Amino acid sequence: MSSRVDSINRIIRDFETVPGVEGAALVSADGLMISSALPEAEQERVAAISAALLSLGEKAANELDRGELNEIYVKSGRGYTLLTSVGENALFLVLAKADAQIGLIFVDMRRMADSLLEIL
Amino acid sequence: MSSRVDSINRIIRDFETVPGVEGAALVSADGLMISSALPEAEQERVAAISAALLSLGEKAANELDRGELNEIYVKSGRGYTLLTSVGENALFLVLAKADAQIGLIFVDMRRMADSLLEIL
Repeated sequence: MSSRVDSINRIIRDFETVPGVEGAALVSADGLMISSALPEAEQERVAAISAALLSLGEKAANELDRGELNEIYVKSGRGYTLLTSVGENALFLVLAKADAQIGLIFVDMRRMADSLLEIL
Repeated sequence: MSSRVDSINRIIRDFETVPGVEGAALVSADGLMISSALPEAEQERVAAISAALLSLGEKAANELDRGELNEIYVKSGRGYTLLTSVGENALFLVLAKADAQIGLIFVDMRRMADSLLEIL
């Protein structure tokens, strides 16, 4: 089991080396932190808020007949907060700089989400 | 007062003519619909979910020290749900097609948000 946790931690930490990325985390769908490489954040609150954001995004997409949710991005003054679901039980959170190539990061996130889904 | 409502309704309806846009709405920060040109949606629920999504996005941006929130996008199978704040008391919601030029639409949304803010 330890090697499984190690694999997850490695993927999360490795994602920080993607250009423009400042931090990454894997959060359970019910809002608990699974693995985190986030700078200076209140981990528990971030995990809970991320899960709630993804859940509300799904409700909005569903209510507006937009189909199944793929990703959420929140753009703010100092950068981006990016979320994508990892199967039905988890989500992948990434922080990116204001000048990051968001399109490219989402491609990498989708690939990592697939890898994480195999491990979970 | 009626001309003020007319002005808001005109801006919301006009936004539907932007290429790639399928619907638009102005929602109060506490989740009530102010003006809507949304197709086939349960208006009250959509307004409430949109306001909650923006509020949570602000909490996430704040908790992760990302600065002030600019915009939120939710990408799903059949298109995008885009949100931007209109001052502190309202938000502007736009539905866009899956193949829409999101960057351009956000530029127009920001401009319309400024116009709406002057009227509100």
